Amino acid sequence: MPIPKYVGSFKGKDFINTQDFTQAEIKKILDAADDLKKKFRKRIPTNYLPGRTLFMIFYNRSLRTRNSFEAGIYQLGGHAHFLSPQDLYTPTLPEDMVPYATEAISDVARVLSRYGDAIAIRIYGDAAKWTIGRGHRVIQEFAKWADIPVLNMEDDMHHPFQALADMQAARAVEPKLEGKKFVVSYAYSGGLKPLAVPQNEVLITTQMGMDVVLAHPKGFELEDSIIKSCQENVEKYGGSFEICNDMEEAFEGADFVYPKAWSPKQFVPPYNKTVDKEGASAYQAKFKNWITTMELLDRTNKAYYMHCGPADRGQEVTDEVLDSYKRSLYFEQAENRLHVQKAVMSMVIP
Amino acid sequence: MPIPKYVGSFKGKDFINTQDFTQAEIKKILDAADDLKKKFRKRIPTNYLPGRTLFMIFYNRSLRTRNSFEAGIYQLGGHAHFLSPQDLYTPTLPEDMVPYATEAISDVARVLSRYGDAIAIRIYGDAAKWTIGRGHRVIQEFAKWADIPVLNMEDDMHHPFQALADMQAARAVEPKLEGKKFVVSYAYSGGLKPLAVPQNEVLITTQMGMDVVLAHPKGFELEDSIIKSCQENVEKYGGSFEICNDMEEAFEGADFVYPKAWSPKQFVPPYNKTVDKEGASAYQAKFKNWITTMELLDRTNKAYYMHCGPADRGQEVTDEVLDSYKRSLYFEQAENRLHVQKAVMSMVIP
Amino acid sequence: MPIPKYVGSFKGKDFINTQDFTQAEIKKILDAADDLKKKFRKRIPTNYLPGRTLFMIFYNRSLRTRNSFEAGIYQLGGHAHFLSPQDLYTPTLPEDMVPYATEAISDVARVLSRYGDAIAIRIYGDAAKWTIGRGHRVIQEFAKWADIPVLNMEDDMHHPFQALADMQAARAVEPKLEGKKFVVSYAYSGGLKPLAVPQNEVLITTQMGMDVVLAHPKGFELEDSIIKSCQENVEKYGGSFEICNDMEEAFEGADFVYPKAWSPKQFVPPYNKTVDKEGASAYQAKFKNWITTMELLDRTNKAYYMHCGPADRGQEVTDEVLDSYKRSLYFEQAENRLHVQKAVMSMVIP
Repeated sequence: MPIPKYVGSFKGKDFINTQDFTQAEIKKILDAADDLKKKFRKRIPTNYLPGRTLFMIFYNRSLRTRNSFEAGIYQLGGHAHFLSPQDLYTPTLPEDMVPYATEAISDVARVLSRYGDAIAIRIYGDAAKWTIGRGHRVIQEFAKWADIPVLNMEDDMHHPFQALADMQAARAVEPKLEGKKFVVSYAYSGGLKPLAVPQNEVLITTQMGMDVVLAHPKGFELEDSIIKSCQENVEKYGGSFEICNDMEEAFEGADFVYPKAWSPKQFVPPYNKTVDKEGASAYQAKFKNWITTMELLDRTNKAYYMHCGPADRGQEVTDEVLDSYKRSLYFEQAENRLHVQKAVMSMVIP
Repeated sequence: MPIPKYVGSFKGKDFINTQDFTQAEIKKILDAADDLKKKFRKRIPTNYLPGRTLFMIFYNRSLRTRNSFEAGIYQLGGHAHFLSPQDLYTPTLPEDMVPYATEAISDVARVLSRYGDAIAIRIYGDAAKWTIGRGHRVIQEFAKWADIPVLNMEDDMHHPFQALADMQAARAVEPKLEGKKFVVSYAYSGGLKPLAVPQNEVLITTQMGMDVVLAHPKGFELEDSIIKSCQENVEKYGGSFEICNDMEEAFEGADFVYPKAWSPKQFVPPYNKTVDKEGASAYQAKFKNWITTMELLDRTNKAYYMHCGPADRGQEVTDEVLDSYKRSLYFEQAENRLHVQKAVMSMVIP
Repeated sequence: MPIPKYVGSFKGKDFINTQDFTQAEIKKILDAADDLKKKFRKRIPTNYLPGRTLFMIFYNRSLRTRNSFEAGIYQLGGHAHFLSPQDLYTPTLPEDMVPYATEAISDVARVLSRYGDAIAIRIYGDAAKWTIGRGHRVIQEFAKWADIPVLNMEDDMHHPFQALADMQAARAVEPKLEGKKFVVSYAYSGGLKPLAVPQNEVLITTQMGMDVVLAHPKGFELEDSIIKSCQENVEKYGGSFEICNDMEEAFEGADFVYPKAWSPKQFVPPYNKTVDKEGASAYQAKFKNWITTMELLDRTNKAYYMHCGPADRGQEVTDEVLDSYKRSLYFEQAENRLHVQKAVMSMVIP
């Protein structure tokens, strides 16, 4: 079996945030993902990582992420361990240690580095105490101590593999992304939801040099550091980045729309003393009109509808859109998780 | 490695109910299972499904089913994901959706179809709200939306792989099943138990053309649709089918006895408004004399004792029978789960 | 791929207690582990157990054990099932059966023997009702009924793979263990902890013919049967075995120190009527000065520090020792779990 050139090309690197990579590197990953997708469809064997073990630590539930990583490493010839915190002594930051129930991340990361080849982690929401950036710190702590690559399966700042999967789906329908209008919009949902997906969508689309509009009601601002990175991306890669507070206006002439719920950060730490779920929910309830409908999609330039899934029906989006809108990339995005993850794993795992 | 002809011969078909297959097809599956059993014993490699992924969704606990499926797909060269509902957003029927905790089966089935090759599901009892047929509907909903084969690992109507394993065990000791008397009998147990096993036993044995007697106290009637299918089987395949309300009479001259607990359906929906566990238990307690003893077995034609396991000692059967009755197929039935499941997987997985 | 001679050399044997093996056999296992460690480092394939299935039943949480067994069998070409009791009907001793929630170990062991190739079990503490020897009895019951090898992943008497890993680490730094002073010492921790590790350390080090000192405060005596085995080892293999009640005295001139918490047995059954966690904790609290410090290590002969992990920082050992003591084998011991387990599996699995 011939080994493609991309295998091992980022050997040993962590994959935590797409901003750690250049546009050229991201495109190289997407090319690899396209190659792996073609081979998957044709059942061409891709045993590029024989004997390699991936540790998957899930502090949160998952359908797409767990199954695409586990199937993905297996399709590359390797094997994944599914680790839930209740089966381990929960790997924990120094300040959160509880004797006989937790174990220091510094120890867990170093021990796993002796047995296998990469550590993938998902942590946000309750597992990260709804304190923005705390889940991300857990992943950084793993990366600090592990001798093997650390992969971010979604924390409370970033969801980099989702961003890659989305760009693979977008490129497949519009080979030239530059000059296309991509709208990342708030959409209503009752529950408390993290910022990771919208933050990563504005990051990756500005990195691809697209004309990006971030739309949300006042109070739903993303982290300042993210906005700054977007502006830097525009300087480096061209395109544009604007923020607006009107969903209808944002959709006007869009080529891609990505309407997705998140929660206003002023109700959770470090912006609030406590986690005020009721406050957030009440504030969100004022914006039930931020829902994706057929009428709204009519204002676009025949935009492709995108969502990371699962979408909250009747809240973020109408059943009609989900079930009958022709230009939806919903299942293609889900599928691409498999291919981009296989691409990154084949590139970084030694 | 030569690939046997049966591999891929039912490519893409679901395996939900043995009645969806003809007698000839069932015999073809059993022949494949015999071939795989022989190869397993001799450690002859059977990598017929390299690179294939099986998703196993368990709403209920399991020993035999989980381990035989996971080991089975691996022995065929593939890999299984063990998915428990608490690790996923629980895949749910439209009417049972709970925001942020469940995900529509229609979405789950379509997403998993993008990553792997078959979905196996177990759901009955509490997980199906003890409403007869509801677990079966969950499996049908998966089958409706999945693009890959759906396998029934036991719902509240059917347990088709158990039925196959039992017929493989019966054929091994009596190569000609036609003309043999097979008794499916109620046996006492205190707990609430589903109808799947007795229903599948009368279905598969009438499909094999045997002389089948279903024995149970009044009130323990199986679903009407099952009885109708049994009568149709007799018309098609010969043999006979009778119902009687006396365990001793039923055992008289039997070649095989399959005494197993189930619960009277008039205590659970849709036959009752609520799930009346106490009512069922109190009614069942009237029939503690429906226990398999050495004396009862003496009335048979040296019958083979069969049970899907685990058997409730001292309730369904005496310790003496389980520990010292010579003609017991108990562990052979358990082992055959492995072989029949490998047979079906190798036939339906594309 | 050439198959080393040690593969299959203890075919079919259980691995429950190092005392079931002679010194020569233990050394043969350690040699195999050294071979496998070298091959692992060089990525030389070691598919000695293709198609083999290992069942891992975890009644307790685990990081090292679970990941090293699962990665280990995979690196040998096989596959592990991770089984937690809540996913099974909990395998249970005859006297503890609960209808509809447990299943007899005699049945579980015989069924699994039909599907795969070895059963590994971890059970101690709450899962064994803190009754010393009860966890060990569970493993013996599995061994009684299983037709395939049973592996002890730690019970409430023994942790044999830890002992092997520790000897591999010790031999790597001191090729000749005879004549070296090895101290197994109590170290303070607040929690209730089993006897398995200290018991196995005194067993394996006396079996290796070392000069062994067991140090603990009064009330922390190990099981009489273990002490007797140590004395027998000294008779058979030379070396010496002493018990002392002073940590400082014990450390004097030591070549290896293994300071580790355990709990005094007079607070738990069968030595007490109930499990008196508070009583044990209060008694333990009198010995907070049994902590491993840099000063204490200065009294030794530049001893190697050893611990099975995870170590309780600030209780068993100071941060300073864990983070900066040069002659620590902490992570090497953890890694060696992988190699010794692969060695034993490749030797006993048929």
